[in-house]
Amino acid sequence: MIIFILGVSGSGKTTVGKLLAERLEIPFFDGDVFHPASNVEKMRGGTPLTDEDREGWLDAINEAAQQAERAVFACSGLKESYRQRLRRGLNKPVKWVMLEGDAALIKQRMMGREGHFMPVHLLQSQLDLLEVPTYAIRVKVHWPIETVLDYLIEQLHMKQSFGLIGLGIMGTNLSRNLSQKGFRLSLYNRFVPGQEEGVAASAVARYPELSSALPFEQLPDFVASLQTPRRILLMVEAGAATDAVAAELLPLLSQGDVVMDGGNTHYSDTVRRQKWAAELGVHWLGVGISGGEMGALEGPSIMVGGTPEAYQLVARPLELMAARVGEIMPCCDLVGPGGAGHFVKMVHNGMEYAEMQLIAESYFMLRRCNQLDPDAIAALFKTWESRGDDSYLLGITRQILQKKEGDEWLLDKVLDAAGNKGTGSWATVAAAELGVPATLMSSALFARYLSTFVAERKRASSFAPRTINREEVTPDKVRRAYRIARIINHHQGFQLLASASEAYGWNLELRKIAQIWSGGCILQSRLMKELADRVPQKGTLLTDREWMEHAMEYHSALIECVGMAQQQALAVPCHAAALSFIQGYMEVNSPMNLIQAQRDCFGAHTYRLKKNPDAGPIHTNWLPD
Amino acid sequence: MIIFILGVSGSGKTTVGKLLAERLEIPFFDGDVFHPASNVEKMRGGTPLTDEDREGWLDAINEAAQQAERAVFACSGLKESYRQRLRRGLNKPVKWVMLEGDAALIKQRMMGREGHFMPVHLLQSQLDLLEVPTYAIRVKVHWPIETVLDYLIEQLHMKQSFGLIGLGIMGTNLSRNLSQKGFRLSLYNRFVPGQEEGVAASAVARYPELSSALPFEQLPDFVASLQTPRRILLMVEAGAATDAVAAELLPLLSQGDVVMDGGNTHYSDTVRRQKWAAELGVHWLGVGISGGEMGALEGPSIMVGGTPEAYQLVARPLELMAARVGEIMPCCDLVGPGGAGHFVKMVHNGMEYAEMQLIAESYFMLRRCNQLDPDAIAALFKTWESRGDDSYLLGITRQILQKKEGDEWLLDKVLDAAGNKGTGSWATVAAAELGVPATLMSSALFARYLSTFVAERKRASSFAPRTINREEVTPDKVRRAYRIARIINHHQGFQLLASASEAYGWNLELRKIAQIWSGGCILQSRLMKELADRVPQKGTLLTDREWMEHAMEYHSALIECVGMAQQQALAVPCHAAALSFIQGYMEVNSPMNLIQAQRDCFGAHTYRLKKNPDAGPIHTNWLPD
Repeated sequence: MIIFILGVSGSGKTTVGKLLAERLEIPFFDGDVFHPASNVEKMRGGTPLTDEDREGWLDAINEAAQQAERAVFACSGLKESYRQRLRRGLNKPVKWVMLEGDAALIKQRMMGREGHFMPVHLLQSQLDLLEVPTYAIRVKVHWPIETVLDYLIEQLHMKQSFGLIGLGIMGTNLSRNLSQKGFRLSLYNRFVPGQEEGVAASAVARYPELSSALPFEQLPDFVASLQTPRRILLMVEAGAATDAVAAELLPLLSQGDVVMDGGNTHYSDTVRRQKWAAELGVHWLGVGISGGEMGALEGPSIMVGGTPEAYQLVARPLELMAARVGEIMPCCDLVGPGGAGHFVKMVHNGMEYAEMQLIAESYFMLRRCNQLDPDAIAALFKTWESRGDDSYLLGITRQILQKKEGDEWLLDKVLDAAGNKGTGSWATVAAAELGVPATLMSSALFARYLSTFVAERKRASSFAPRTINREEVTPDKVRRAYRIARIINHHQGFQLLASASEAYGWNLELRKIAQIWSGGCILQSRLMKELADRVPQKGTLLTDREWMEHAMEYHSALIECVGMAQQQALAVPCHAAALSFIQGYMEVNSPMNLIQAQRDCFGAHTYRLKKNPDAGPIHTNWLPD
Repeated sequence: MIIFILGVSGSGKTTVGKLLAERLEIPFFDGDVFHPASNVEKMRGGTPLTDEDREGWLDAINEAAQQAERAVFACSGLKESYRQRLRRGLNKPVKWVMLEGDAALIKQRMMGREGHFMPVHLLQSQLDLLEVPTYAIRVKVHWPIETVLDYLIEQLHMKQSFGLIGLGIMGTNLSRNLSQKGFRLSLYNRFVPGQEEGVAASAVARYPELSSALPFEQLPDFVASLQTPRRILLMVEAGAATDAVAAELLPLLSQGDVVMDGGNTHYSDTVRRQKWAAELGVHWLGVGISGGEMGALEGPSIMVGGTPEAYQLVARPLELMAARVGEIMPCCDLVGPGGAGHFVKMVHNGMEYAEMQLIAESYFMLRRCNQLDPDAIAALFKTWESRGDDSYLLGITRQILQKKEGDEWLLDKVLDAAGNKGTGSWATVAAAELGVPATLMSSALFARYLSTFVAERKRASSFAPRTINREEVTPDKVRRAYRIARIINHHQGFQLLASASEAYGWNLELRKIAQIWSGGCILQSRLMKELADRVPQKGTLLTDREWMEHAMEYHSALIECVGMAQQQALAVPCHAAALSFIQGYMEVNSPMNLIQAQRDCFGAHTYRLKKNPDAGPIHTNWLPD
């Protein structure tokens, strides 16, 4: 479709055209730039153009319109004959928009603009020429610009530019986010009598920023409301619910439409659905979204998996929706093909489990060993932030520690049984399957599991040592232990990404992923921003000399803290796992040769020689004859 | 089929009949017991029976033969008229076996037996009566009994009683084991030109105990050689290879046949194949087999999953093949339906990883901290065995530590990169999926994974602390730490079984599983034998007061050893995980409430109140307004 914005000089064609094109996400062309230099000279000199002068100019615009698939052109087009020349040979829909207004107002506007070649006194010659087209959409220049745009969108019978299915907390907040970025949304939520009725309509009614969104409860109507290629973001529960929506939705779509699954879907399900959609010619992207409720509204971190072709079709809305680092770099990108997006999100969550656990254990040591109260620990954490350990999670932890109900810390009333939504488990499963020692995320996962055995723990507590000598840990050593444990957690997480990338041929760029995780998501932190610049492209953190040296500055603090906590019968499983890992990582003569010998002894699984590993597998009869 | 063993008194009918019935696995009936008391009295008195005397007796045997489906009867059946009376109305195949011999030899035998009612002088009256049936299989009484049986089996055209597919190390040793227990085997191995040719025939030729086995390279011939219901044990590689064999085998089988998959198959694959086989009316059992090569030959531990109906058909060969504890209790049983057998085997292997790792870490501490050499450590481990820590794994470890090549310990030449075959990974995956904190098996798995990063470890070793103060750990504390870590490993393993049992409705009996694991398998140990008597039927080890008290006797030793190792930069991940677990297990005020608060803060995941957990989930806005 080609849209011509018509009107005399000064009527605001360029302003309206540019903004309209932006809303429609199509190119904008200013007609003035098609004038040959001779015309510009003439007008600048105060001489009105003749029809002959205008012919080449109109033809140049017509030529550009022929080459564009969709575009907005600002061009005075005052006479019918000019307009016929503009649309000559255009075999696509053409829409005309006429900006009309009071001559005095236009004159005033013209006088306000600088550097334009058109002298004010030529306005009258233009008004004289004007033949108002009956077929144009007519707009008054004195309307507020937003009104003009809304009116035009409506009058142009433009379909909506983006669809979203599932108006839960995340879906609603992402809708508000997208709407604020200028997208015209169609919102669909299923109708479940007595439970989910008018959900989309309520959201539209509740949030002013959704006023241009259309609510639906019938999927075919929702689909029909969207411009093609359609862009539809699914924000429904992962698993069976997503399959159910896919089964209903896919047959309604057209070749080239793009479905984005924004749920916490297992990456293998994404691969399966991509094949399913591809059979119908529909693109399916696995879109990992992190940032919680607030991130959804203010800019989440977005990890996309699928084809570059599909990503190109949705890059603009997704990148506008995403968080930005330094106001420039969007925390959104295509990370790889297939299920790569959801895999990366899953690893993010596994690392998040460990980051949370490390904070909880730091708090635990400070509270039990040092007898600090939550306010004091919050104050201490504040100082950690200024020493380079600031992160989203440490920030909210400070707030949590300070939250009181009456005289009591609310935290102290919370049951210590931690839930989970499954992605941490998936990450540990992936590590186990891919041969990656991701011991921090697994320790954090299992710590949550152990916490759910509330009754057993209570019974067992009577067996705990009665008298424990409380001994302080130096608070700064707790910070240092926390730092190295975090580096190890990030090492393991990136190792898991690197191994998956190799196993699945994804070509993941670790640095790009660190960039995406630098803002918007739960993992965002100073450390992650550093990684965005400094994560090695091959291998992972600790294979890099600088990172290893950095980590080892904190090694003795980790030994000390873990030892101190263990002495005092405190469980610090994630710190302990970090310590075991780094010691194992630096060990060239580990006792794992004994494991190999045992395996060879009972199962003839063979072993290799330390001196010459490439010499091939050896089997020995280890038992006396 | 009914088999009558005929012959005069003293010809050995009972002996031959009993052994033949045992080989054929069908019931045996001694004809003598069907005599009415009056007949017995008469014979005891030295008076030969008349034909009239014999009528009721023959009818009683005939009645029993009518009711039996298959059976062997020992019955003199000297005259044709008697035999006609015996087979009257039997509408199933009847086979006759006549034992013939020298009168003097028979007389001598009769004189040797005690308490029998038949006086020796009646022998002649029997010989006088004898009408040798031309249709009988005739056997000489002076043949060795094994020759008699082999000849009869051959003459009876009996099909083979058990089939085995896959003559790898495990398959071959299981065949030898079964053959020694009296089963007539058919052995099938695929034909792969240049790689696997005549594999089954070679095994038969190589091992004398397989002389009665028939080798095959054509699956249809193999199947046709087996008596129905067929019993076929698959010993092929888990995964695609098993599916390939199943696809070829299942269509050849008949309703009621039983296939036993003895590979290290994932339990979900077993469930899938059970459905597949059931559609064809074939039973499919998932059979976990542990014990390595030697166990396969001398008696492994066998964990069966499937229907009781199918298990009944294979219980005899499997239980005869299995290890025995105290010469009585076979280490084999049906543990539950569906994939339960393979699941139990998988957990066995996960626990095995941890047991191996704990030994390796104990060795590591003794060697590094105490500077003991492998011989000294072997001697120390010997003393551990006499203190109640004896196990199969500790036993082979002692042998491994003492193995030398020239003046060097062979162990010191072995590369410390540990492999795995996948079941340990599956066990960790199952724990992650089922919400069970199985931290010892996962630590052991990840320790193996970390060990494979040989080049990275070498590079990183240059960053290790240069000067370490070596300090001895008391060897007995190492033993005590090992003891509690093992108890925790067994607690976690049984917890995993209990959780799977509940999740899948398997009704696993933990005590029965401990019994199966008491012999034959890699996990067999004194501790496991104790568990076979003392594992709580509900809950797991540490929920039991006695086990918890027992464990806590060793708690301080674990703290001390882990602390000492960590101080000296030694990685003891499995011991450290055990320590973290037991401390977390006794903690009623863990910092996991902070995790819940964080989750509620960023994701509105809610929390519960410590005071009143049943009050339902609560959501709080934790951030300042």
